[in-house]
Amino acid sequence: MAPTAVIDLNCDLGEGFGVWTLGDDEALLGVVTSANVACGFHAGDPSIMRATCDRAAAAGVAVGAQVSYRDLAGFGRRYIDVVPQELADEVTYQIGALDGFARAAGTRVAYVKPHGALYNTAVTDETQAEAVVEGVTRFSPDLPILGLPGSRLLAAAGSRGVPEAFADRAYTAAGRLVSRREPEAVLHDAATIAARCVRLAVEGTVRSIDDTDVAVSARSICVHGDTPGAVEIAREVRTALLDAGVQLRAFAGDEWSPR
Amino acid sequence: MAPTAVIDLNCDLGEGFGVWTLGDDEALLGVVTSANVACGFHAGDPSIMRATCDRAAAAGVAVGAQVSYRDLAGFGRRYIDVVPQELADEVTYQIGALDGFARAAGTRVAYVKPHGALYNTAVTDETQAEAVVEGVTRFSPDLPILGLPGSRLLAAAGSRGVPEAFADRAYTAAGRLVSRREPEAVLHDAATIAARCVRLAVEGTVRSIDDTDVAVSARSICVHGDTPGAVEIAREVRTALLDAGVQLRAFAGDEWSPR
Amino acid sequence: MAPTAVIDLNCDLGEGFGVWTLGDDEALLGVVTSANVACGFHAGDPSIMRATCDRAAAAGVAVGAQVSYRDLAGFGRRYIDVVPQELADEVTYQIGALDGFARAAGTRVAYVKPHGALYNTAVTDETQAEAVVEGVTRFSPDLPILGLPGSRLLAAAGSRGVPEAFADRAYTAAGRLVSRREPEAVLHDAATIAARCVRLAVEGTVRSIDDTDVAVSARSICVHGDTPGAVEIAREVRTALLDAGVQLRAFAGDEWSPR
Amino acid sequence: MAPTAVIDLNCDLGEGFGVWTLGDDEALLGVVTSANVACGFHAGDPSIMRATCDRAAAAGVAVGAQVSYRDLAGFGRRYIDVVPQELADEVTYQIGALDGFARAAGTRVAYVKPHGALYNTAVTDETQAEAVVEGVTRFSPDLPILGLPGSRLLAAAGSRGVPEAFADRAYTAAGRLVSRREPEAVLHDAATIAARCVRLAVEGTVRSIDDTDVAVSARSICVHGDTPGAVEIAREVRTALLDAGVQLRAFAGDEWSPR
Repeated sequence: MAPTAVIDLNCDLGEGFGVWTLGDDEALLGVVTSANVACGFHAGDPSIMRATCDRAAAAGVAVGAQVSYRDLAGFGRRYIDVVPQELADEVTYQIGALDGFARAAGTRVAYVKPHGALYNTAVTDETQAEAVVEGVTRFSPDLPILGLPGSRLLAAAGSRGVPEAFADRAYTAAGRLVSRREPEAVLHDAATIAARCVRLAVEGTVRSIDDTDVAVSARSICVHGDTPGAVEIAREVRTALLDAGVQLRAFAGDEWSPR
Repeated sequence: MAPTAVIDLNCDLGEGFGVWTLGDDEALLGVVTSANVACGFHAGDPSIMRATCDRAAAAGVAVGAQVSYRDLAGFGRRYIDVVPQELADEVTYQIGALDGFARAAGTRVAYVKPHGALYNTAVTDETQAEAVVEGVTRFSPDLPILGLPGSRLLAAAGSRGVPEAFADRAYTAAGRLVSRREPEAVLHDAATIAARCVRLAVEGTVRSIDDTDVAVSARSICVHGDTPGAVEIAREVRTALLDAGVQLRAFAGDEWSPR
Repeated sequence: MAPTAVIDLNCDLGEGFGVWTLGDDEALLGVVTSANVACGFHAGDPSIMRATCDRAAAAGVAVGAQVSYRDLAGFGRRYIDVVPQELADEVTYQIGALDGFARAAGTRVAYVKPHGALYNTAVTDETQAEAVVEGVTRFSPDLPILGLPGSRLLAAAGSRGVPEAFADRAYTAAGRLVSRREPEAVLHDAATIAARCVRLAVEGTVRSIDDTDVAVSARSICVHGDTPGAVEIAREVRTALLDAGVQLRAFAGDEWSPR
Repeated sequence: MAPTAVIDLNCDLGEGFGVWTLGDDEALLGVVTSANVACGFHAGDPSIMRATCDRAAAAGVAVGAQVSYRDLAGFGRRYIDVVPQELADEVTYQIGALDGFARAAGTRVAYVKPHGALYNTAVTDETQAEAVVEGVTRFSPDLPILGLPGSRLLAAAGSRGVPEAFADRAYTAAGRLVSRREPEAVLHDAATIAARCVRLAVEGTVRSIDDTDVAVSARSICVHGDTPGAVEIAREVRTALLDAGVQLRAFAGDEWSPR
């Protein structure tokens, strides 16, 4: 009998600021197993962070620090050529700030995931990738780091690196994400997306844009929740995975080995 | 034989931001036993916080979180009528952020001291005083809180409250600080200030502005360091205390009982 | 024949920031005659300000500077005890910043209205009220200032002061706003609100919470637009005023004399 | 008889923030003819901007808008990959904000100079250079833009572009600045720097790092003032230029033609 497939579902949460809100956090906490909580640099203020940690802990969802460039005005979507040591320090600061709320909620920051432009930069930029890892390590040498397979970030993270796939993104035959500049980069049909996630979790493969099967090793799948449609898709992904007998479980705390 | 008097010297540190600097942190770390480290809300950025924690730990100086209103433009010197729950959350956020750097430096945040307008408000405003204490408690129920004797803050802090005196401030016959609006509120002569600090530490009394002796119970004395003259005064205070046989020791970790 | 009644309708606009949005600006620009545009201190970023000025100018809606305390995190809803000179300078800064976009859109900043806690403070606090007026005067000695009748702000503004009424707020028998802490402070029924606005415009009176008629002299009526229901109410107010033969016209540029 | 050489001296001013100060603005206002005033995005707050405009106007020094990326924490020294339209809007915002203070001081914003990383980026990045120019044009189609000869910025600025030289920087034989990464990029000897500035103003040439003379066409020379030594150098530059019969005059308002 085949072993039960295990996958984590992660999503960005707590991305409002002050009076402004973004996404349907309540709905998402019923879907995902890991919450990437904004830490105040691209979104999230202390009260939102507290509330999000409290809700995530109550829902049994792992709390991750979604660290970002210091860029409220740009929502962390703009590359900043920050000095590596300062970037590392900004990462440590954000994790620490969130961890206070996580501990108050009876849990801990269980992993780190860079946000937006920092995530994208850490795919190819070795210097910034290493700065992120240094900032994480300074906080805790054991903290898992979630990132793209093949990225500089996961290379720098070593055994703490946890690869993720994207539920609604097209992949090339080489197993890379199709650039968002391409017309077919993002999938929109919920049933298609859910079926792909099942294959990702069970077989570790995905149908590429060239109609070939390609291996994508992922311990977590990232779903989105910033639009009503996105929440609906996330729900279908969850349901399809459970229906296929896949176990939904946060990677935090596990002894995960690449396929 | 009389027991040896013990006193802590505390000072604000790490109050630059980005390219801007303030005060002579290096000099002060050779003087004080407790460093009130700015946490990014009125001053201090992540790199300054890291460097300050590293230096304080290396110098054997206790690290305290100098929490503030969110007010870089006003250096935390302006009262803000913030919702109590939000204030509590801002306090938790700042302590957590600093604690990441403190732990990386091999120590911990050992106490909390409000800064500027928040400090002054917490003297008389019960609601904000309790919000500060709630924010501290959420981070850690045991963390000492440094404040003015007789303040709402220390009342709310209960057994965790640690009273401090001010080296260079005049006191009324009732043991209160003379308002800064009064011409003689601040002392400037180093020898006078140093002698007062010795009396504060050894006898628990200070000469009031009315030339009477008044009891001021303090486990810590606050010195300033944002001017060259201030550093010189702080040095004289330290020397005079040591010459008088007073033991300089951080209150963090001790079992302090009011006189 | 009675002269045609004239009234201005004003509303807050451009109150998003970065990715975050607030209110339905497009809908409101079809309703109001004056737009209170956020200037970046409580909401509004340069791109939102540009777009809002462009749209307002295209719709023939007057552009006003909605100046605020520097408080993005609190949306300008928290009193800040800012030094008067600094407050005046912050007001000048915000008006100037907006005026660049207004002029680029072929118009000018036509008036100033304080936002949130600054608006409320300027009702009773003479010092801050005068600081706001000083900041406006420094930019332009002729710029109208919109405020509450009987407020310190309008007193300080002198002949430039323009009184406004609130469409959905209850009034006391003395013609003051019923405090928001009271249960019946805010009206919710669109037809009732619209009928009150007609009376305000045509007769200069409003039915007080004590069921007496009270005179409220207003050249402008403030409507809200941050909820779908609010936009609907604003539309009904506009329709009712037009149906009653009231002329909707911005006060900017007119020679308005108190009733 | 040869025509009198004319040159402008420009310097960054008003680069403090809140309690923090930077540079000796008073001294520099006695040296330069054009002040690049920070507009709040990398430094400068409204009160500093007002004071700097007032002082510059009183000293007969032209006021320029020193526009920057939104980056207080990094002092505008970090490249940000901002969307061009947003960059243009940020430029318009900053000029407008400063112009309010300039007009209150009886003058106007007379030119624009990008700061730090934005200045450097606009040398080679056509998109951001054009965004800066668009932001300036939106404010005023006639406003001069100060930049590096041969830069994308001056190309985009067209006839409004004003080239500047740097008093203390080494030049290559091709007339480019030697990179700061090179050991001899910056000169430190006041007499040498002053003599180079005279040649720049009178002959339009500078001795390159390869010991050849190279033409550098400049209507303005940038001096620094953020260290005591820098102020001394700036004073020597001014004195040497005056002694050589060079006329010190702001470019603002003149009909300048490239050599």
